[in-house]
Amino acid sequence: MSAEIKLRRFSSTDADFDSKLKALLAFETAQDDSVDEVVANILKDVKKRGDAAVLEYTNRFDKTNATSLTQLEIPQAELLAALNGLPAEQRDALKAAADRVRSYHEKQLMASWQYTEADGTILGQQVTALDRVGLYVPGGKAAYPSSVLMNAIPAKVAGVEELIMVVPTPHGEKNQLVLAAAAIAGVDRVFCIGGAQGVGAMAYGTETVPQVDKIVGPGNAYVAAAKRRVFGFVGIDMVAGPSEILVICDGKTNPDWVAMDLFSQAEHDELAQAILLSPDAAFLDQVYASIQTLVKTMPRQDIISTSLTDRGALIQVRDLDEAAEISNYIAPEHLELSLEDPLAFSKKIKHAGAIFMGRDTCEALGDYCAGPNHVLPTSRTARFSSPLGVYDFQKRSSLIFVSSAGAQTLGKVAATLAYGEGLQAHAQSAEYRLKK
Amino acid sequence: MSAEIKLRRFSSTDADFDSKLKALLAFETAQDDSVDEVVANILKDVKKRGDAAVLEYTNRFDKTNATSLTQLEIPQAELLAALNGLPAEQRDALKAAADRVRSYHEKQLMASWQYTEADGTILGQQVTALDRVGLYVPGGKAAYPSSVLMNAIPAKVAGVEELIMVVPTPHGEKNQLVLAAAAIAGVDRVFCIGGAQGVGAMAYGTETVPQVDKIVGPGNAYVAAAKRRVFGFVGIDMVAGPSEILVICDGKTNPDWVAMDLFSQAEHDELAQAILLSPDAAFLDQVYASIQTLVKTMPRQDIISTSLTDRGALIQVRDLDEAAEISNYIAPEHLELSLEDPLAFSKKIKHAGAIFMGRDTCEALGDYCAGPNHVLPTSRTARFSSPLGVYDFQKRSSLIFVSSAGAQTLGKVAATLAYGEGLQAHAQSAEYRLKK
Repeated sequence: MSAEIKLRRFSSTDADFDSKLKALLAFETAQDDSVDEVVANILKDVKKRGDAAVLEYTNRFDKTNATSLTQLEIPQAELLAALNGLPAEQRDALKAAADRVRSYHEKQLMASWQYTEADGTILGQQVTALDRVGLYVPGGKAAYPSSVLMNAIPAKVAGVEELIMVVPTPHGEKNQLVLAAAAIAGVDRVFCIGGAQGVGAMAYGTETVPQVDKIVGPGNAYVAAAKRRVFGFVGIDMVAGPSEILVICDGKTNPDWVAMDLFSQAEHDELAQAILLSPDAAFLDQVYASIQTLVKTMPRQDIISTSLTDRGALIQVRDLDEAAEISNYIAPEHLELSLEDPLAFSKKIKHAGAIFMGRDTCEALGDYCAGPNHVLPTSRTARFSSPLGVYDFQKRSSLIFVSSAGAQTLGKVAATLAYGEGLQAHAQSAEYRLKK
Repeated sequence: MSAEIKLRRFSSTDADFDSKLKALLAFETAQDDSVDEVVANILKDVKKRGDAAVLEYTNRFDKTNATSLTQLEIPQAELLAALNGLPAEQRDALKAAADRVRSYHEKQLMASWQYTEADGTILGQQVTALDRVGLYVPGGKAAYPSSVLMNAIPAKVAGVEELIMVVPTPHGEKNQLVLAAAAIAGVDRVFCIGGAQGVGAMAYGTETVPQVDKIVGPGNAYVAAAKRRVFGFVGIDMVAGPSEILVICDGKTNPDWVAMDLFSQAEHDELAQAILLSPDAAFLDQVYASIQTLVKTMPRQDIISTSLTDRGALIQVRDLDEAAEISNYIAPEHLELSLEDPLAFSKKIKHAGAIFMGRDTCEALGDYCAGPNHVLPTSRTARFSSPLGVYDFQKRSSLIFVSSAGAQTLGKVAATLAYGEGLQAHAQSAEYRLKK
């Protein structure tokens, strides 16, 4: 493919800017009813027949010939062997990334707290870790060791006792980088299972696969549908949409750098979205030209080209303040601030998954090893949600210890309100504690 | 109804205890497909036709005759009038409850943080509030002013700029206590809309109702189905199951008190669950007797009787340590520790929505005015989730500002890992930042 990439180009001064922007961001995750029906049946079967069902689906979909689920478990020694078998450079890079991710996430740990009131009443919040977590890891080309680190390390930092991982191994082929990452991240048990049956096994538990309390990790449409269905019975992380980057640039960064940063998002898949905002029209021209030149050097140029043509845009803004406003509307998954004094500028950003500041901070650094998580809210959900973190593997219990004196004052208030709501047992249980 | 309540009674020493316990807790929220279809159509229509659709559904379902949505908005002056019109005792009780809820929730506020590494790289987390939140409040008999306080106050403490509330007013009848609670909690705008159309109006926005970023609050099956459907497009709190209480008692609390505490859960609805664990068989007998006597004095005795018969249980345990274990399996919404030194005992509790400690701390105090939230995880979801809190109305953005020196070390690690994953643009964007 060597034709020019027809990258959308418009300006915030266009009369129809708002509708253009809305159209650019529109993305309907059409749920496929046939996928959902297949998934519902698999889940029902796994819940009912346990190991036997999981084994059948795995042999069928992954073309394996296992005779028991025990055979599909990868022993810890094999994970370690995968790690030790890597070229030193890759092993060191994985370890360096894991160390930085761990060290950043340790700062997110929540602690319990409590306080005592004048009358002796104690209030607080007790923080505990989830007991057991399941990590779904895709097989095949989308198998990313970095994703294992980003999902597993926060769980371990939170204090999750047992971390179970499932990963499909079509034709029995195992991804050594993924196994090595599991070893580094401290995953406790790994099963070669994928798809809805992998999600079901962890949600309901089988004779061999332990039941978990929450399932995290990316997956295809079947995995996403399965996670949606077991949600409520177990916790899940969010079902992610296509990946996005928004770059805000003052026009003074090397246009090749910005073009490559846009590519680094676009190369993920055809639905990925890469947008650049700049007040400098000439700079937009330069980035446009860089894109046309550089794409030819990219092994994934077909994907990049489709992604940029279908969902990319270069947008001229009046000034950087307007860029911040537009960015807050977009609520991007990844936001690059390629401009002077990005730290001051970041105060204007209200909604974004991760903010990459300065011309040197390309998104790729954050994807792998800067420290913060690369599992981020997509499709404008940064308006109301956060990166995956240690807090997703901890939860809180309210603590209430009302003193005898406290029960006298609080009891009257509670009884008044309970009578107002027509809940007499509530009122009376409070009144029992009042001293006559 | 004056027949004896046939309350389930068993012991942890029973051979089939595990399966009995499992059966007791089993609760399938069967999703009604016909409800879901009705809801899907209403949402589609509201998204497409905005005000006109909301107006039609409201007039039809709530038997009103409004000619515009503007008519359905309740002005602030009317909220204040409702507050001022309450009997002084109710007004003071509402205000006292609101003050305590606010003061507790202020302790939950998250703050931004950042740190600088030796090479000048800055990492951190920026915490911001959601812009606009929607609060659903049920109409009719389930309209609880305490619920308005518990949902609205954390949002306002978090710094949410605009809080929209919808509440159905069948035949135009408004609940003055609910309006008064909205005034106290600082709700910004109130619309007399309910059902799926109320959820849709807030999720998509109409000409009159502003679009929100997250919808919280309880509702009937239609509201729950609508929330599930708009989830992802906007945030939602969790879709709650029936309410539950678990009381652990050493046998030294007045059995009438414990019976009334069980009633205070059972009176909510027929599906509510109340369970008592005690090592003292004679005490279980006493509570059983108290239940039979006291239920006759309860205005809601039919509901209490059905709830206790269908879903209640008195369970004898070997000792209090075993009670803690069983409690951790149940992961109750409300847990009362009616025993000596409950603070020490609470350290054994891993999973619970709220822990009520000591013989004086009946659940009702927490429901109304102790301070912590009464919106709590039900149906064993306390294994992986938390009470509603300020943290549900704040979110985080990762901050990454890599120094020029940092880009040299991180760039090499990122490039190695990116090549390992076959993502060349990722690698190259990192390598561009390496100094030649």
